[in-house]
Amino acid sequence: MINTLLLPELREMLTSGDTEGLREFSSALHPARAAEFMEGLNPQEAWQVLQAADSNRQAELFGFLPDSMQVDILETVSPTETSSLVADLPADDRVDLISDVHPDVVEEMLPLLPAEERRETLRLMEFPEGTAGSVMTTEVARLSETLTVHQALEAIARQSEDLETVYYNYIVDEDNRLRGLISARQLVTHFGKPNTKITDLMQRDVVTVLATDDQETVAAKVASFDFIAIPVVDDHQHLLGIITHDDIIDVLREEATEDAHMAAAVDPLDDSYLETHWFTLAWKRGMWLSILFLGALFTAFALGEYQGEFERVPWLVLFIPLVISSGGNSGSQSATLVITAMTHGDVKLSDWWRVIKREVWMGFCLGSMLAIGGYLCAMGILSTFEPDDPQVAATFQPPSWHEVLVVPITLVLVVICSTLCGGTLPMIFRRLGLDPALMSNPFVAGIIDIAGIVIYMNVAAGLLSSMS
Amino acid sequence: MINTLLLPELREMLTSGDTEGLREFSSALHPARAAEFMEGLNPQEAWQVLQAADSNRQAELFGFLPDSMQVDILETVSPTETSSLVADLPADDRVDLISDVHPDVVEEMLPLLPAEERRETLRLMEFPEGTAGSVMTTEVARLSETLTVHQALEAIARQSEDLETVYYNYIVDEDNRLRGLISARQLVTHFGKPNTKITDLMQRDVVTVLATDDQETVAAKVASFDFIAIPVVDDHQHLLGIITHDDIIDVLREEATEDAHMAAAVDPLDDSYLETHWFTLAWKRGMWLSILFLGALFTAFALGEYQGEFERVPWLVLFIPLVISSGGNSGSQSATLVITAMTHGDVKLSDWWRVIKREVWMGFCLGSMLAIGGYLCAMGILSTFEPDDPQVAATFQPPSWHEVLVVPITLVLVVICSTLCGGTLPMIFRRLGLDPALMSNPFVAGIIDIAGIVIYMNVAAGLLSSMS
Repeated sequence: MINTLLLPELREMLTSGDTEGLREFSSALHPARAAEFMEGLNPQEAWQVLQAADSNRQAELFGFLPDSMQVDILETVSPTETSSLVADLPADDRVDLISDVHPDVVEEMLPLLPAEERRETLRLMEFPEGTAGSVMTTEVARLSETLTVHQALEAIARQSEDLETVYYNYIVDEDNRLRGLISARQLVTHFGKPNTKITDLMQRDVVTVLATDDQETVAAKVASFDFIAIPVVDDHQHLLGIITHDDIIDVLREEATEDAHMAAAVDPLDDSYLETHWFTLAWKRGMWLSILFLGALFTAFALGEYQGEFERVPWLVLFIPLVISSGGNSGSQSATLVITAMTHGDVKLSDWWRVIKREVWMGFCLGSMLAIGGYLCAMGILSTFEPDDPQVAATFQPPSWHEVLVVPITLVLVVICSTLCGGTLPMIFRRLGLDPALMSNPFVAGIIDIAGIVIYMNVAAGLLSSMS
Repeated sequence: MINTLLLPELREMLTSGDTEGLREFSSALHPARAAEFMEGLNPQEAWQVLQAADSNRQAELFGFLPDSMQVDILETVSPTETSSLVADLPADDRVDLISDVHPDVVEEMLPLLPAEERRETLRLMEFPEGTAGSVMTTEVARLSETLTVHQALEAIARQSEDLETVYYNYIVDEDNRLRGLISARQLVTHFGKPNTKITDLMQRDVVTVLATDDQETVAAKVASFDFIAIPVVDDHQHLLGIITHDDIIDVLREEATEDAHMAAAVDPLDDSYLETHWFTLAWKRGMWLSILFLGALFTAFALGEYQGEFERVPWLVLFIPLVISSGGNSGSQSATLVITAMTHGDVKLSDWWRVIKREVWMGFCLGSMLAIGGYLCAMGILSTFEPDDPQVAATFQPPSWHEVLVVPITLVLVVICSTLCGGTLPMIFRRLGLDPALMSNPFVAGIIDIAGIVIYMNVAAGLLSSMS
């Protein structure tokens, strides 16, 4: 029955008030799967399903519902009914949720939480978004230094209902200072030697993060160490909480999306694309679009400066977009390659000279390739070109093969300039403490637009005057 | 001593042949940290350190070295020496490594591996790169259906040396068909009730993936279910292996980088930026750059068609780059937003009408904003504009306020066209079974370059002829 259960059947259970069926639905399926089926329900109906579930399962199920649905439920159902569910949530999820819910509901909700959960929530809410403190949870297994393997297993079994993970367990002294780590794996492996002291087994060289560390740094650390969880401490090594692998995966996905948005000159969204209000979206796009637009206006000034060239040599106009887009494309390739390499730690600031050599050579190769293609095509296009005005056309001479060299020479120079800009600007921004992803791609594009025109016009002026 | 240990001291131990010191170095530090210190060594020296380590530690340490260093060691040291290390590696890592090492070394190495490891390696190598089969490991805890909690813990403790994780344990029947899942957490929680049957505790609704599934799909599944590992099965539910959280994190990072590269028109790299041969890099960039270049060549044809307009109204030239870059920027914003939203499952193909409405409205808002700014700036720039040629200048009339309306009208139309293209093309590519990330961004840019010029020239032709 379970795998064919569908939304209509769930609806029917709801209308017929089949509490037993709802309870079975919520306990038999993996909570993530059950939550998927519930996405089609309205907040009232979803709450009805949640109420039928066992109290432990309730919090799990709720945790897998989409964020917007969680918020809707809390804003629809009275806080007196939902407060025990909210208290049961892992501390980090509770804080995330509360920051999204309408402040009036929060104000009503907080006094209804048990004192311990309330204090914890308020404390976690103080960590700024994007820090380790804001994604950690405080439900971590703390073991005292005196325990044996057997006692540790018993202690964990006792606490496990309230723990986010039992796989990494931390040994602390009386002052809650972190002394070591023992994994469930080590405990299980020593299952046959129950009297072994955990201090004999524990790892003492524990890798930690500070609550104030950037979540991106934390994710990179966990990824490179293959951890399931990482402990969060304060400046005095007091154990504050842990960040688990599933939160790290969320952080990595979030950061990847943010980087993609920034590379496309969109200020990162807080909600999903379709859920973001159009005005917010317009603001987050318009802001960067305006800055890029101001940059592009300079191209109009630059072209104004060289107006004379276009009057003398009208065919130069044809290749303006080609020059600009070749520069833009090769520059954005370089910038993206260097940004992603820096994110992965493959390129460090000390590699600047290698990056420059590589990008200049790459620019020369790619530019030369485009130049050959561009020259042949330009000759083709220009062989049929003639001015529209019959008076001008009468004295018009099609450009000679050496005049058309303006196009390939410009292409080589523009592409070298672009790859150099694209390769170095991200490193410069990193050096200045700015986010390379945010600053580089749009900036590279703006600089190259203008540089492209200046190079094109100067090559044209130099080559064509020397020839006439 | 440990935390201040640095490369020079490690080198000194190596030259003085201090095996005891090296062994301590390799066992006291977390293997990932020890591996970081070893990055400065040459392959011979690194091998010397590895040899001093305990055999179990050896494989762990080796696993944390950078991929290129692992390959160098295997290609420098004789396979007779390294084969036992290679046999100790987790199966998935062994296969990855072997696919990077020179075929001659592999040929020498394979016969030296124990029969079981050799067969396993050859079998895993058959799964194409990017599938679940290619990232899974076969070292998974298999429990029979008859065990109690106590027996299960004993069985895991016995096998644990060879297991990649002990946290998820799978229950299989005599035919190796997957029947259920029991987590170490459940076992530890029932530590006090050792005679409970594991079949009474196990989850029966196990979420699995097929060995042929795309690794990106697998990662999305693990991320949404918050799993530590996911079992890989064949069409008949036979348990083949598992994919663990650390592999998922690697897949997510790899896919994010690939998407970023594709959005910037770079064919995804197999190695890191600095390690990729310049010729490979030139090929992976040049290929796409050439395709985009061909697209951009059409802009030259298009401009050739409208040559007459520029002769009659020379100031039109000034705003070519502005029009093109405004279109390009807003189009790439839309494409990136829709691509990332599709990756996260926030936008489905069935949402196409909502996306179109949203993007057209967004294009209108953003276009209007740029139009206002563009109009004012264009008036400013054109107030000082005059042709270079004194003869033309004598009869030149600065454009009137209504002639300059060409610029804002073009901007609104181009931006709407760009956001519409950027929003819909990724969905069309997804519908056609193509990777939206690969196809959309470059294509959007190419289409918009040409559309921008056509729109600009037609608006100019329509408005200026109607006025004169």
